[in-house]
Formats: sequence, C-alpha cells, structure tokens
Amino acid sequence: MAMSSLRQASRVLVRSRVARTLTRSATTSAFHSTPPADPTSSADASQSLAAHYFPTEPDMPRLMTSFPGPKSVEKLNSLDKVYDTQAAYMVCDYQNSVGNYICDADQNLYLDVYAQIASIPLGYNNPVLMTAAQSPEMIDAIVNRPALGTFPSTLWEQILREGILSAAPKGFDKVWTSMSGSDANECAYKAAFMYHRAKQRGKTSEFSDLERQTTMENASPGSPDLAILSFDKAFHGRLFGSLSTTRSNPIHKLDIPAFKWPKAPFPALKYPLDQYETENRAEEDRCLTALETILQEWESRISAVVVEPIQSEGGDNHATPYFFQQLRALTKLHGILLIVDEVQTGVAATGMFWAHEHWNLDTPPDLVTFSKKFQAAGYYYANDDLRPNLPFRQFNTWCGDPSKAIIAREIVKEVRAHDLVTRTRQVGGYLYEHLAELQSRFPHLMQNLRGKDRGTFIAWDATDSQTRNMLLKDMKGAGINIGGCGTHSVRMRPGMPFFSRLSQ
Amino acid sequence: MAMSSLRQASRVLVRSRVARTLTRSATTSAFHSTPPADPTSSADASQSLAAHYFPTEPDMPRLMTSFPGPKSVEKLNSLDKVYDTQAAYMVCDYQNSVGNYICDADQNLYLDVYAQIASIPLGYNNPVLMTAAQSPEMIDAIVNRPALGTFPSTLWEQILREGILSAAPKGFDKVWTSMSGSDANECAYKAAFMYHRAKQRGKTSEFSDLERQTTMENASPGSPDLAILSFDKAFHGRLFGSLSTTRSNPIHKLDIPAFKWPKAPFPALKYPLDQYETENRAEEDRCLTALETILQEWESRISAVVVEPIQSEGGDNHATPYFFQQLRALTKLHGILLIVDEVQTGVAATGMFWAHEHWNLDTPPDLVTFSKKFQAAGYYYANDDLRPNLPFRQFNTWCGDPSKAIIAREIVKEVRAHDLVTRTRQVGGYLYEHLAELQSRFPHLMQNLRGKDRGTFIAWDATDSQTRNMLLKDMKGAGINIGGCGTHSVRMRPGMPFFSRLSQ
Repeated sequence: MAMSSLRQASRVLVRSRVARTLTRSATTSAFHSTPPADPTSSADASQSLAAHYFPTEPDMPRLMTSFPGPKSVEKLNSLDKVYDTQAAYMVCDYQNSVGNYICDADQNLYLDVYAQIASIPLGYNNPVLMTAAQSPEMIDAIVNRPALGTFPSTLWEQILREGILSAAPKGFDKVWTSMSGSDANECAYKAAFMYHRAKQRGKTSEFSDLERQTTMENASPGSPDLAILSFDKAFHGRLFGSLSTTRSNPIHKLDIPAFKWPKAPFPALKYPLDQYETENRAEEDRCLTALETILQEWESRISAVVVEPIQSEGGDNHATPYFFQQLRALTKLHGILLIVDEVQTGVAATGMFWAHEHWNLDTPPDLVTFSKKFQAAGYYYANDDLRPNLPFRQFNTWCGDPSKAIIAREIVKEVRAHDLVTRTRQVGGYLYEHLAELQSRFPHLMQNLRGKDRGTFIAWDATDSQTRNMLLKDMKGAGINIGGCGTHSVRMRPGMPFFSRLSQ
Repeated sequence: MAMSSLRQASRVLVRSRVARTLTRSATTSAFHSTPPADPTSSADASQSLAAHYFPTEPDMPRLMTSFPGPKSVEKLNSLDKVYDTQAAYMVCDYQNSVGNYICDADQNLYLDVYAQIASIPLGYNNPVLMTAAQSPEMIDAIVNRPALGTFPSTLWEQILREGILSAAPKGFDKVWTSMSGSDANECAYKAAFMYHRAKQRGKTSEFSDLERQTTMENASPGSPDLAILSFDKAFHGRLFGSLSTTRSNPIHKLDIPAFKWPKAPFPALKYPLDQYETENRAEEDRCLTALETILQEWESRISAVVVEPIQSEGGDNHATPYFFQQLRALTKLHGILLIVDEVQTGVAATGMFWAHEHWNLDTPPDLVTFSKKFQAAGYYYANDDLRPNLPFRQFNTWCGDPSKAIIAREIVKEVRAHDLVTRTRQVGGYLYEHLAELQSRFPHLMQNLRGKDRGTFIAWDATDSQTRNMLLKDMKGAGINIGGCGTHSVRMRPGMPFFSRLSQ
C-alpha cells in the first residue's frame, strides 16, 4: 500500500472507530453493565469508584497540539544529550496526569491504555497509593533501605503477608522478592538450577572439591551445563539469563551472548479460538509433541520450562487451558520444573488475579514470577526444596525493595475492596464485543482479535508492521496512548481504573 | 586452636580494643582532627553536623539482650515460614534506628559500620533524606512510576543533572540508569558487546539476515561468542551475566550455569603497601603479563575488562594506581573497553567521591557503574558510540527508578554541602592509625590491615575463617555491627555520618 493510502486507512480506523470505542469504554457511564456479582461489594463502591478515585478525570482526551507536541520534542532533544531517548514517545507530566489519562509536557491529556508498558495498576495519582506513599512505613522504607536477606525489618513479614502473600495463587505460600521482572525470572531460574542439582546430589550432601574448583572457572560440574527451555516468541526479560529465554524479536537480542538453551514452538492459534477448536487442538498437539522431543533429546539437561500465560511482547499469542494442562503433565512426567511468568499477565489484568488460574491445573506450577503492575517483583513457590540448602546462595544486597512491597499491599487491598477482578472481566467482555463488531466492519484493517474472556488483555493484528506503527502514532494523535507487540499487533494494557467506570 | 581459645582470643580483641576504637571514632568529640580544609564549608557546618543530623544519637551502643536477642530470633523463625532467612543476622527496627546506630527487634542499638552491606549513605533516619522522601516529586515517582525509556517525565533531566550527573567522574557526561549493581554491570556489559559488534560491522550497517535468524536460536553470529574478562576474587553481582564475572566464593556460583568467560589473576599484595613496594610491583607486573596473554590468546573475543577499584566481597584486595594505569593502557592497546565497577567503592567511601579518582589516569575508563550507597544504579559513559544505534536495544520496562534518583540527588547535595569526602578521608586516617596500633599489639589476631589513605574503606585479616566468624559475632555481642569479606577478612563499611562526628 502506498504511504498515503496507509495513512488514510489508519485514520479511518482511528478517528471514526477505535478511539471512540476506547474513550467511551473508559469514560461513559451510559453503558449497560451489571454491577459486580459479588454480594459483599457494596452498592456504593460499585457505583462511585471512579468518582471516588478521580473526581477530576476528564471524559475524553484533551488535545492542545499535534503529536508529539513541541515541548515534548524540545525536552527529548535536551534529555537526549545525557540519557538515551531513542525509544521515547513523549515526555510526560505525571503530576498533571489523572486516572486513565496521561498528561504530556504540552499538557495534552491522552487516554492511556498502555499504562507504562502494562505497569500502572490503579491509574495516575491514585489517592490511595498517594496516601500509602506518604505513610511512615514508606518513608522508613525509602530512607532506611534494608538488605532484606541479612537485616530484614520488624515490619517485613506483615508487609508480605498482608500484601504479596495474601494475593498468592492457589497452592503457593512463600515468596522471594527481587527488583524487576527480569530479575524475578533469573532468581527463579537460579532456584530451579539449585533444585535440580540438589536432587542429583542429595539435598544435604556437601559440594565436592571438584565442584568448588570448577565453578570458579565457570566450568562444569560446579557451573553445570543445565538449561531453561522457553518458547518461540517468548519474552522473559533483558538480563543475560532471562534474555537467553527471550525469543520475541531480534532487536531484543542482537550482539548479546546467549546461553545455548532450547526453545520449543508455541502454538500459532487461529482466532477467535472457539471457531477453530479442531485446528487449534491439532496445532497445540504439534507443539506439545515437539516440546516432548526436545525435553528428551536436548544435549544438556533441562531444569525448567518457563512460559507466559499469554505471550505479550511477542504478539499477544494465546494458548488454551488444554495446552497448559498438558504442559504441566509433561513437565511433571519428565521431572522438570514449570515456571509461569506472570510479569505482564498478573495482577487482575486477564479477569483473574493470575492468568494461570484460567487453566484449572490439577497441580500448580512450581514457581510463578511477578513484577510490573504489582510494582514489587519476585516469585512465589511452595516446595521447601526450592529453597537452597545454604545461606547466601539465593541472595544479593537488597533482595527486593520494601517500598514496592508496601505499594503492592495497597494494590491487593484495592483490588479486593472494589472487586476489580470482576470489573475487569466485565469491561473486557464489553470491549471485546465492540472491537469484534469493528473487526467485522473493517476486516482489511483489524484481524485476529484476541483476548475473549481474558479481561482487557486484548489485542488484534494490523495488516502489516508499517500499518500498525502508523496506527499507533495516529491513535496518539487522536488522544489514545496504545501499544504494539509482536511484528504487527496492537495491544491494550489499561490499568484497572479503566475497568472501574463501566459499572457506574 | 580449640574453640575455647578461639573464643577467648576473639573476646580480647573485641572487648578491649576494636569495639572501643570504633565506638570512640563514631561518637567521641574529643579526638583531635582538623576541620575540613575546604574554606567554603562554614565553621558552623563543620562543628555541628552530627548534632544537626542526629541530635538523639547515643554515644555508645545500648545492649538490652545478648546477640541475637529473643525477639529477633522469634521474628526470624516466623518470617522464615514464608521468606528465606538463612542469611539473616537479626530483625531490625529501622524506625528506631538513628544515625550510625541500628536498632534491632529487642531494642538493642548497635554501632553499624556495615551499613546494609555498604548501602546506607547518610545514616538511619537522616532528616534530609526524610524530607526528600516526603516531597511531591517523591510521591509522584512512587505512585506514577514511569517507563523511563519510553515515557520519561518532565522532571527526569533535572533530577539526573542535579544529582547523578553532577557527581559524574571526570570525563563522563552521560548516564544509563538501572535497578541494582548487578543490573548496572549487565547493562554495561551489553553496551560493551553492542559497541564491539558495531565496530566490526560498521555502526550504521544493517544487521544481516543471518544475524537476525541466528540470534533467535541463541547462536552465533547473531548471539556472538564474545566475553567479558574479570579478575580472580572479583565480585560483580548475582545475575547470570554478572555472576559469570564474579569469582569471589564458590557459594556465590555453585550450580548456576555460567558463560565461558576468562579471568585474570588479581594482584595479591603485601600490606602495608608502602613497606612492600618492590614485591608488590613484581606481583602487579606478573598479573599484568598474565592478563595480556589472556587478552591475546583467549578463544573468544574479549569485549571488555571489568574491575573493582578495591575488590570488596572477595576480601578487600587492593592494587596500586600503577596497576590500574597499566590496565588502562593495555585495554586501550588491545581495543578492549574498561568497565570500572564502583558499586561498592563509589560515593565518597574511599576518600574520593569515586575510588578510581585515586589512579590519576591519562584517559578515563569507558564505563563506570554504581549502585548501593547511591541508592540509584546505572553506568556513566561519555563516548556516543556506547549508545546503541537503534532504540529498544539498551532497554527494559522501567530503565531504573526515579524515586532512587531523587535520593541520589539529595546525597550528592549533602556530600557537597558538608564536604563529606574530606571528612571521610580524615576519619579514615585516624581510624587506620589506631587500628594499626592495635595490629602491632595483637599481631596474632589482626593481620594485613589495609585501606590506608582510602577513607574508611578499611579491612584486616583474622587468623582464619573460624576466628573471623567468631569475631563478627562477638563484635555484635559488644554492640558493633561489622561485616566480613573474602575467606577470613573483616571489613568496615560505615555510612558517612560515621565520618562526620570526628570533626566536631
């Protein structure tokens, strides 16, 4: 398509349809939707949540300039002299952002359904989080930052139990905290490797002299040739171990040395899933068979399989509960740990608090990692054997950050108090339905809409990469900040306040 | 030595000498020391800094129970059910800690010269940092945590320029921010690898199809077999790339796969350095020769050498400016980048703001990493070619944390306002002198005292590992929280308020 046709097509979609649908979802109270089914949530809470959170939130985007605005451009040029801004879209005035709306340096207010790459849970300047940010506990956590592994605070257990642990997925009762999603995954990988070797060696056995010597040379057996298996198009982070399991896009990996770890095919399903059950089952079986072959034949031993419930950065690729049930069965059969990476899918985004709750597994995964929307990062586990047999093995200076765990606690409380999981499910259903209508009317512009019954974790494909990128830019021009993923997909990652207004 | 003799020896050292020396250094105003030479610091500031910071700080430890206290033990047992506490010494009541003194759950107050593994810069509950923690900018940074690479805030440039960048070592004017020391080092390694390949390929050249394909398989040339060289006994972190350069202790590395990267010998010098100049020069030359051989002959190309100015975790091992000057020359000669890891040595700890300023290099290192005492983490650089040629290469969701950068800014201001670099130098001189006296009187208990003219970055060797561990425990029993490093060394890592009281 010529550039002018592309631009025109993109604008049709943006101006007349998508922007309006999203804006109305976020801001109009006229939509019909049942209030939360949970009888414990009060009528008051269900009716006035948005007003309670953000009384000054506007009803629609407020555009003062074209995108990007001149002040954003000027500030980016200045910042770029000292800080790499190549990936920056705009400079934001967070103090003037509110709820679902992000404010830029030019005082444009965009409806933000990207939310800092899926990392703002309860909207900008959420008053509950602002109160938590000024609490004596928070000030303490910031000024007296502890080395949690060696000098935990008197408050630490309570912060964990009331927050991160109270939201633990079914079957999990312990946590190890870290700093980011990449860090959380790498700590989980380390736990898996130590577990694997302890099973081989015997948990209470001493390390051999040979192991002690060779590990100082980065050589086997002390530094063993063990592997983590990940899936094609997976994204698990950017540090050296996590990047070795990331397979989303060459630009994430080029020029960086990687471990020779295996990848298995991830199902390439047809959407909507319920119309292609037979084909999709065959595709999932094909991938499971390929996976089992790798588990049996890979040159090094595989300690764990890591998987996202929905591959996010790699293109919002779904698989069915069947696939994950079989994956759990296969990993158990082969004595391999299953790590579920909920860094992007977790914290109420998919209509469950954790996306893997959609799978109805017989036995839970071995480790579940989290970060992003939770602000705090880390992994859940239950099996005591996943805790190394000696101190200073799963360890670093800070071992996480209490200031983030305090915010996580408030998030859990708010999700529970306002039943934001149910609300997300409802708004997601509404939004999916309306986007499906748009898709049927603009099949040349929107394809493979996906995320039905997965809250607002919704995406679709543009015709190609160029059209997608133009759409993302035009959407900003129309007042909507929305993100891309994969080669030519558009993804929605709003915070939870986006969900909250539908129920009014 | 039998356990009873060990215990006795340790107690002699603790009770009668070391504890008293440290306590007096921290709390007595009777010591003679010149006020800061800097004529711009006001007499008032130099005389009343400690009183200004911490009017309620005690003059000596306050011990209510033996170590560890019963409440610490009880709380550790409870916390351990949900969080790994194997490495924990005690549970701390940070809200009741003050200045140089850390309070535990039993309300014991210990003089803390370990300071959260060298990570508390200005004492517990420092009022300046508490004010910063309650500022509108901080609340904004906590509640509206930005993805700095894509949506930086209007405040970000100013926060960097007034803080992290204003403390940049000579020759550096740009920064990339990250989350921890390990993360900072890994980002620096990634910058080095991308730089290296860009030099080979030509900076503006496109990636080849083969590179794009192979990197998705974790294979060369897309994921090239390049290496970072580190030194024997180095510590650079715990993630998979940084851990591959860490060579401090098997327990840090066992069971974790590692890259097959080379290590060079680090000089094993004799102390005090000025008494063994000839022997030490020969030892440094031996190591430099070995290094050059590796640079020339290692099986894979080496993109960078990473080095700590003083190897900290690995045993407080020093080298002379000559060694580092030669290292800089060698790396330049071979077209290899030099990364200086100032995670533990930086931020005024050694009597300079950055420890590598002691070296008087002709040309600065290529990258300098920081974290810990700065709270914010990242790396400095100057050469534009160290910035990748495309967006989303040096990238992740958060790219650091403004809340930490705001604290770093306050730290820089305080260091400058009270000339804490000079004060550290003075107190370090005093402390070294008195510890040297102790060493001469107890040569069977204290050996290889080191850190002369390196601020309070001071360490010594115990007779053996068992004696050292007993000393660390007995010191806590005597009210001093002090740390170990290497196999049998004791290290001092006080915060800067420790330095401040000497000048009164």
